[in-house]
Amino acid sequence: MYDANALTLTPADASLLTDLYQLTMSACYVGEGLDQRPASFELFTRRLPSRYSYLIAMGLEQALAYLESFRFSAEQIAALQDTEIFAHAPETFWTLLAGAKFTGNVWAVPEGTAIFANEPMLRVEAPLWQAQLVETYLLNTLNYQTLIATRAARLRDVAGPDAQLLEFGTRRAFSPQGALWAARAALAGGLDATSNVAAALKLGEKPSGTMAHSLVMALSALKGTEDEAFEAFHNYFPGAALLIDTYDSVNAAKRLAASGKDIPAVRLDSGDLVELSQAVRKHLPETKVFASGDLDEFEIARLKAEGALLDGYGLGTRLVTGAPVNGVYKLVDIDGIPVMKEAKGKITYPGKKQIFRQPTANGFEDVLGLAGEEMPGATALLQPVMEDGKRLTTTETMGAIAQRTAQSVAALSPRLRDIQAPAPSPVTLSPQLLELTERTRKIVSVAA
Amino acid sequence: MYDANALTLTPADASLLTDLYQLTMSACYVGEGLDQRPASFELFTRRLPSRYSYLIAMGLEQALAYLESFRFSAEQIAALQDTEIFAHAPETFWTLLAGAKFTGNVWAVPEGTAIFANEPMLRVEAPLWQAQLVETYLLNTLNYQTLIATRAARLRDVAGPDAQLLEFGTRRAFSPQGALWAARAALAGGLDATSNVAAALKLGEKPSGTMAHSLVMALSALKGTEDEAFEAFHNYFPGAALLIDTYDSVNAAKRLAASGKDIPAVRLDSGDLVELSQAVRKHLPETKVFASGDLDEFEIARLKAEGALLDGYGLGTRLVTGAPVNGVYKLVDIDGIPVMKEAKGKITYPGKKQIFRQPTANGFEDVLGLAGEEMPGATALLQPVMEDGKRLTTTETMGAIAQRTAQSVAALSPRLRDIQAPAPSPVTLSPQLLELTERTRKIVSVAA
Repeated sequence: MYDANALTLTPADASLLTDLYQLTMSACYVGEGLDQRPASFELFTRRLPSRYSYLIAMGLEQALAYLESFRFSAEQIAALQDTEIFAHAPETFWTLLAGAKFTGNVWAVPEGTAIFANEPMLRVEAPLWQAQLVETYLLNTLNYQTLIATRAARLRDVAGPDAQLLEFGTRRAFSPQGALWAARAALAGGLDATSNVAAALKLGEKPSGTMAHSLVMALSALKGTEDEAFEAFHNYFPGAALLIDTYDSVNAAKRLAASGKDIPAVRLDSGDLVELSQAVRKHLPETKVFASGDLDEFEIARLKAEGALLDGYGLGTRLVTGAPVNGVYKLVDIDGIPVMKEAKGKITYPGKKQIFRQPTANGFEDVLGLAGEEMPGATALLQPVMEDGKRLTTTETMGAIAQRTAQSVAALSPRLRDIQAPAPSPVTLSPQLLELTERTRKIVSVAA
Repeated sequence: MYDANALTLTPADASLLTDLYQLTMSACYVGEGLDQRPASFELFTRRLPSRYSYLIAMGLEQALAYLESFRFSAEQIAALQDTEIFAHAPETFWTLLAGAKFTGNVWAVPEGTAIFANEPMLRVEAPLWQAQLVETYLLNTLNYQTLIATRAARLRDVAGPDAQLLEFGTRRAFSPQGALWAARAALAGGLDATSNVAAALKLGEKPSGTMAHSLVMALSALKGTEDEAFEAFHNYFPGAALLIDTYDSVNAAKRLAASGKDIPAVRLDSGDLVELSQAVRKHLPETKVFASGDLDEFEIARLKAEGALLDGYGLGTRLVTGAPVNGVYKLVDIDGIPVMKEAKGKITYPGKKQIFRQPTANGFEDVLGLAGEEMPGATALLQPVMEDGKRLTTTETMGAIAQRTAQSVAALSPRLRDIQAPAPSPVTLSPQLLELTERTRKIVSVAA
């Protein structure tokens, strides 16, 4: 029997928030005397979601917080022993876990940086068992926030700099913590505000929101009319948007105009948003008109193309759920030996790598090379962020990350930013990486 | 500046894990003297995900835990006041929050029950402000777990009772807590085990798992061959499955057979699973063959139809991410007045409702009626689970919920269980509900 509240998550839970095989493989490394061998793993995405050309790297802050607090308590170790899964594993595995601490180095691209398929957003260099064990949590953290930040950047790019973009996804997010992480990544990716009160306050931001149909329905029923519902809410929250589509949006706008009140904003959540926004604007020319209801970058592009007169958008379901970023975390070097996987359609490149970003006339081009290479004029995107388990960087403000995101997207060519049929990523491999890949492939063929 | 660790979630955070408008609307109700009026909200799904005919209700345990611990601390109240959003709101709102406690009644269908579109899985009857404020968290909790449990039930139905179904989604889940909730709902929906160690231990279950390519790559590089990697891992974990597709699956199976070792299971993660599983089975007739890699119920159905010889499946990305269940939470009665929303394409039915499930020759039919109706021979699915804020039920074991899920699915007709083109839901509205809907619609038309 378990306590349902215990399915909430504390930082102490994080080290066991991993796949079982990370622990069994670590025990195997201990048994073979290989657990302390220096290993390098890189985290990257082989194929981006459909119609995506770039990703906005996000989630590093939470990844580093996890690595810093990586520990196993006596209770956790006892619980693992009780499973009897480790009955044949070496006893010294438990000693290792009891003294566990992440002691490795981490290289990463800063949050808010645009990257492409196959470009590592993070590299962990650590004793083999540590580098292995942290895989699951790192992927969980970086995959989701990167997805949300990328969508937020695309939404901002399509909606334009003046549109108000509001994160409304909490009720549809995949768990309460999923909602918090979505809100963070959305703000860092370019949205203006979140309706999630806990997320906003934790991030030092002001939450945002309008009103719901239930208020209109309750106050209409108890006081008599929709207008009385508007009047009451406007009285206590004169700056808030009124939701006008519970019964008849255009009629509601007309009556609000006739009331002579200064209505800062209204929201439409159903119906033909092109027609309705035009009609509402006619009655309330000074009032901002917001739209919501299953919106995404494709729908916003359509609404703008068809002449909708909208000042802002509430983004929920299609921002925080849906197809994921399928980042993977792969061993690229063990004890100085570059390695690669050759399973069908899932080739990885061997060795510790670096992303070299070179300015061009139209923006930039990337060369994916080896970590030791020099490329004059290029910026090396992977930077050291942790050394011997100690953070080298300080926590960035949401504003700083959002600014990096905006600059990253602005540096992409218009063809890369096309949301319908984006150009392929401008990434080539350096001759050294190509040569190493060929060489490693031959060794692998012999070994198997 | 914020603490990244604080983006983990404690039970104390839950009351602010809400949309801002729930708080502003509550303040409005207080100002109008309506906050204590008895209100009923129902949680249901208007349209199911594509090709779904039923949902498996899940997440009630966490929903009730949330309602039981619903409180606002002095720090939380101060943080809300500091936003200045409530500058014109009545002072008494803060008194209300300071003494907040959920005091309402809750009706719900038991976890593991199959329900259809428009059927409420939960009703909250509480003072208006409370019933309003809890909307966001309840939706978050029930939407996601219901999605996962439904997918798990479909997977079990397609894979058959003997297949081993393993939840491997943690690295792709939307946040660490999302992974925990996915694991719970997957087990309660019919899967056998989860690889998520934290989730398994919290739920009192044994975690499950195999091994990863990185172990094969690391040990191949350090010790010489893939066979040495297999031998080492098998030595410490003789019951675990070996991952054989890092280089050449069939060749690996042949060598394992030649070794004379007793290999309980192998896993394939790439390539043509039909061909490979048949070839591997030929070499290792006594060994269970597991498959993984972007599997879902459609892919399992295809593999089975094409003759794959598989004993189990690892389910990850397509189980825990993707299109959501879009549950909504709607006011249906305020102070004894039934209400409904009539926004285009988003009609709701008024009044407190009950689901009456009537056995038929082929299974059952549902009548969606009013809460007070009597329907001889039918089972009323919504049951009281909380009264005056106190739980009436105890926490169920995962096994009990999984059993209910299995019985629920078995009671559905084969046409409802067709995953490609399921039959429409067998739900009709009672004459009383139809009559109330007509009557309420007229009142709404007059009021607007």
